[in-house]
Parts: sequence; C-alpha cells; structure tokens
Amino acid sequence: MKNISMKHLAKALNLSTATISKALSDSYDISDETKQRVLKLARELRYIPHAQASSLRGKKSKTIAMVIPEVADSYFAQAINGVEKIAYADGFHVLIYLTHEQLEREKAILKELLNGRIDGLLISVTRQSEEAYHINELVAAGLPVVFFDRIFENIGRGEVTTNDYRASYLLTEHLIQQGCRNIDFLLFSNALSIIKTRLEGYKQALLDYGLIFNTENLIVCSNHDQENERLIQYRLGHKNRPDAIIASVEKLVICTYHACALKHLSIPETIKIAAFANLPTASILQPPMTTITQPAFEMGQAAASLLIKTIKGKSVDPAETKVIIPSKLDLRKSTMLYTT
Amino acid sequence: MKNISMKHLAKALNLSTATISKALSDSYDISDETKQRVLKLARELRYIPHAQASSLRGKKSKTIAMVIPEVADSYFAQAINGVEKIAYADGFHVLIYLTHEQLEREKAILKELLNGRIDGLLISVTRQSEEAYHINELVAAGLPVVFFDRIFENIGRGEVTTNDYRASYLLTEHLIQQGCRNIDFLLFSNALSIIKTRLEGYKQALLDYGLIFNTENLIVCSNHDQENERLIQYRLGHKNRPDAIIASVEKLVICTYHACALKHLSIPETIKIAAFANLPTASILQPPMTTITQPAFEMGQAAASLLIKTIKGKSVDPAETKVIIPSKLDLRKSTMLYTT
Repeated sequence: MKNISMKHLAKALNLSTATISKALSDSYDISDETKQRVLKLARELRYIPHAQASSLRGKKSKTIAMVIPEVADSYFAQAINGVEKIAYADGFHVLIYLTHEQLEREKAILKELLNGRIDGLLISVTRQSEEAYHINELVAAGLPVVFFDRIFENIGRGEVTTNDYRASYLLTEHLIQQGCRNIDFLLFSNALSIIKTRLEGYKQALLDYGLIFNTENLIVCSNHDQENERLIQYRLGHKNRPDAIIASVEKLVICTYHACALKHLSIPETIKIAAFANLPTASILQPPMTTITQPAFEMGQAAASLLIKTIKGKSVDPAETKVIIPSKLDLRKSTMLYTT
Repeated sequence: MKNISMKHLAKALNLSTATISKALSDSYDISDETKQRVLKLARELRYIPHAQASSLRGKKSKTIAMVIPEVADSYFAQAINGVEKIAYADGFHVLIYLTHEQLEREKAILKELLNGRIDGLLISVTRQSEEAYHINELVAAGLPVVFFDRIFENIGRGEVTTNDYRASYLLTEHLIQQGCRNIDFLLFSNALSIIKTRLEGYKQALLDYGLIFNTENLIVCSNHDQENERLIQYRLGHKNRPDAIIASVEKLVICTYHACALKHLSIPETIKIAAFANLPTASILQPPMTTITQPAFEMGQAAASLLIKTIKGKSVDPAETKVIIPSKLDLRKSTMLYTT
C-alpha cells in the first residue's frame, strides 16, 4: 500500500495542504463541512497522521510495544506468549514494558513511545489508571492502540476482553449451589474496571438468589501480602465469618490460603475458596482450587492480530474491533460440597 | 564521553584509517606489532567497532534486548523484573524476545539484532543451544553480551549464574538425611549446562553417602506434559520405585505431583518430592514443596547492571564479570521425615 501524505489529500480535494493540516488538527479556522470532507477521505485512503511520519511511514520499525502491569503473573505471562506468537509469525518485534501498577510509570513509558520507535501499542492499564489522557496523546498522534483485558472503552483501535461479569456471576452461583450463604469478595483498593465488573456479577448473583450483600463481605486489600494475610485472618476470626471467599485477582490467592491455614479452617469443609486465576499449579494446590480461568493466550493472540492488521492498513470490520473471549469455570476441590 | 572513531585512532597513531580498519579486522596485511598498538589504543579510548556505527555511536538506542526461553516460568518472570528495575532506573528500554527453547528461533532473533537496534544483549540460551557461533557473531560485531543462568563461558562481557552444583548437592544430602535411599532425578532430554551441573551435584552427594547411582534413577522427559506424567507413573509402578524425586526444572513439578496422586502415593509419607523451582505457590501446594529457589530477581539485576556498565563504557573489574549468586534451599513438608 502506498503511504498517503497530506499532499495527496490536498490534491484530491483541491485544497491547500495547510487547510488539510488544520482540518486534521480540528482547527477553528476550518468549517465543519470541510473538516468532514477531509476526515472522510483521510479515513478512506487510510491516511496515517503522525509526528514522526518518516519513521512511521518511510520505514516501519516493525516493532510493537506491549505495556502491561507486570510479568510475574500467570495471566500476563500467558498473554505475552499469545502476542509473541502472532508478532513473531509476522516479523514484528515485541517491546515489553512493565508499569508495576504505577500510573506515573505508565505515563512515562507512553511519553517515551511517542518518539516513533514503535508501529503500534498493546496496553493493559494499571490499577491506578482512571483517566486516559496520556493514552489519548498516542492515539491523537496516529499510533494504533489496542487495549486488552484492562481497557478504556472507545478510544483505541480495538479492545480484547473476556466476559468478567458473566464469569463472576457463574462462579458466585456455583458457590451458592454448594450451600454457601456468606460469600466474601477480595479485591484491591484501586478502581479497576474489570474488578468492578467482577464485583457486579457477584452482587447480581447474590441478589438473584435472595442473599444479602453486606459491606463486611468486601475485603479491600493492599499491595502488601502480609497485611492482606492479617486482614483476611481477622475477618476469618469474626463471629459472622464467611463460608466462602472469592479472590478477584490471582495475587490474592496465596494470602487467602495462608490465612485459612493459620486459622485452621479447612478448605472446602469449613470454607470454600475460588479465584480469578490462571495459575498452572491450581490443580496441585492444597486443596486443588476452583478458578475462573481467563483465555490469556487467546486474548494476547487476538489483540496482536487486531493491532498488526491495523498497522498494515488492512480494513478491520468495526464488529471485529471489540473481541470478547469467554473465560472458563474450572471446578476443583476447593469449592466442592462437603458431605459427612 | 565523546565517541571515538577510526579517524581519532588514525590521527593519534599517525596511521591511515585504512590501516586502522585492517588492524581492527585482524587483516594479514598488517603486522602484529601495529595490530597490538591499534588494539591497545582502541581499548584505552573505548573505541566501539560496529557495523551500524551511526546507530551505535552517533545516537545510542538506549535499548537492551533480553533473549530468554520463555516467560511463563517463575524464574524468568522474576528475572525480567530484576532486569527491568535496573534498566528503567537508567532510562533503558528492554526488548524481550522469547526463543521457546528453539535454537533456530534464537538464531533468527540474534540475526535480527545484528541490525544495530540495540546497545547490548542479555541472554539465557535455549535447551538446544550447544554451540555459540550465532552469539559470537554479535560479540564480534562489538555488541556487549552478558549471559545469565544458562551460559556459554568466556565469550561475552559477563556471566551471572547461581551455584547449581552446590545447591543440588545440598538438596540431595537433605533427602538422604530424611532417609531416602533411591532418589530419582527428572530432567529434559537436551543437554543444558546448568542441568548437567545439577545432575553432577546430585551424583556426588549419592557417592559421598555411599549410595549407588543407577541409570534407572534418571527420568528423561520431553516437552509433552502428558507423556511425562505417564513416564513418571510408569516409573512409580516399578518394583524398585524411588522413595524421592528431584525435579531439576520447575516445568516438571506439576506432572510429578499428578503422577504421585494418580498412583496414590502420598507425599511425603511414601515418596518425597523436591524441585528446582521459583513457584510463588510452593507453600500452598498439596503438600507444600521443598525447593531450591534461585535468586532470579537478583540475577536479573546483576546481569542488567553489568551490561549497562559495559554499554556506558565504564570500566568493569574482570573479577566482577563472573557473578555467582547462591540459591536457597527452602525446606517444606514434601520432604519431611515421616514418623508414625
């Protein structure tokens, strides 16, 4: 595909390149009608606006960046493998950046990426990312951005997610069917959209089964494992202690198991445990743990495919830009009905 | 630091740049004496020879590549975090490449990296890498290379390893002290130097305690989990079945636990299990597993520090180029003495 410049657009529309430039930057000097005409043609011809036009158009860097919170987490490790598989097959390099869940770090990384060294970005935002200004800057610079798992809606070229609400509903329903009536929900303090969604699915299931959601059921954790362990232990010593715990993130599984062991509460006899986790060791835990397993590898593949299609200027059906791949409920002993 | 070109060297030595070039490429046209003079000054002024001089000298890419077998493995995930911490603090980008244990892929990646897009390379070779020709090419092109964990000796600018021999000896000794007399050793078929070292440590401990190493004790696994599970099960059904198993790699832990469960052999009562593994879930397995825990994060940090020092042309004491960080023996229930 030949690269389209502002000159091409100007010639085709019989306008000056200055007018094209102003129209593309949404200047007040230009009428809405002209802006519409310019944008329409730019879209049709797949004009790529970008500060580093030479780098982006003249010679593609054949590099995509993957900005993720961390790598010592089964979900992201598996997602990287998915991205890597697609990228490698297409001759793309993958630059991996870790934000360590820090918004400031995410901002610094994206700023750095504005320098044109990449052709596109895959991102799963930090727990602290509440506004998308820093991501919008890349989008405005014409860089294809695809979100996966932890997303901001409608600002990139695509979103790959899983069915967190439904999965959480099904898991909660399963626990209720196993006889649980007082189910705790563990989460981190920051507002992450997917965790909120999981919380909603859980609450809806409680409601549908006539159970009451109590604020006591919400255990808000921090980044400190030992603190979380103490927090859960404290809750387990409560007279109204839960008969089940859902860990909404993998990181909280270990402290939950530890807290139960320290309180001598046996799983699943006294308390049932389940988690959103992709741990390969789930089947050999003491006891094996019921999980909502996310399609991490597949999500990585889908996100990379979408991004590379966009980079190559291939047409992507709008329907294909929002990919939802369902999670799986893997039932194991930690939530089994205990019959004496 | 100002970048040193061949011109600088030529002027300082009162030679032509052609002579400098030939001397640096070890041409037969140049006398040994002249070569020595040129190389000495080049070293003193830290001249960086490289095909892509403009990219490497004119403007550093401020990017290092980390070529590793995989990421869905606790050791490498933690090592990446260590590398990333040091690199980020120094303003370096980290390009992560996965070889998936395939030598062909490792070769293709390194060939790609010859194009000058990086300032230095951190590498942990694949299980298939038996000769270092493809790595030598990068070294010859003047690119700083630091090995970590899985190394080739004496060809890069540094090596970061752990004490695999000693750790394996201590683990085997521990099992013998727990009463084990027939200890199996699980490994992959390919010849990986660190695994050979672990095997030697295990054999030496057997020898020192008067136990006989039998070829039956060696279980050679493949990349197929189910096949490995069957292989271990078969061995566990043997009349001379082992009373302990050492998994020399983390990947073999899950199939070992599964095989024991399928054979109804309880750990640690009937059989003791230990592994070289950095699994965060080791403490909540059924039962909690004794591990040789590698200092993955610290090894990543050490390797990145060494590489960045070299890239910056800082002098590195030869003694500092071989870093050995000891592993830890974490004793847990899977190897505890069983007393009735």
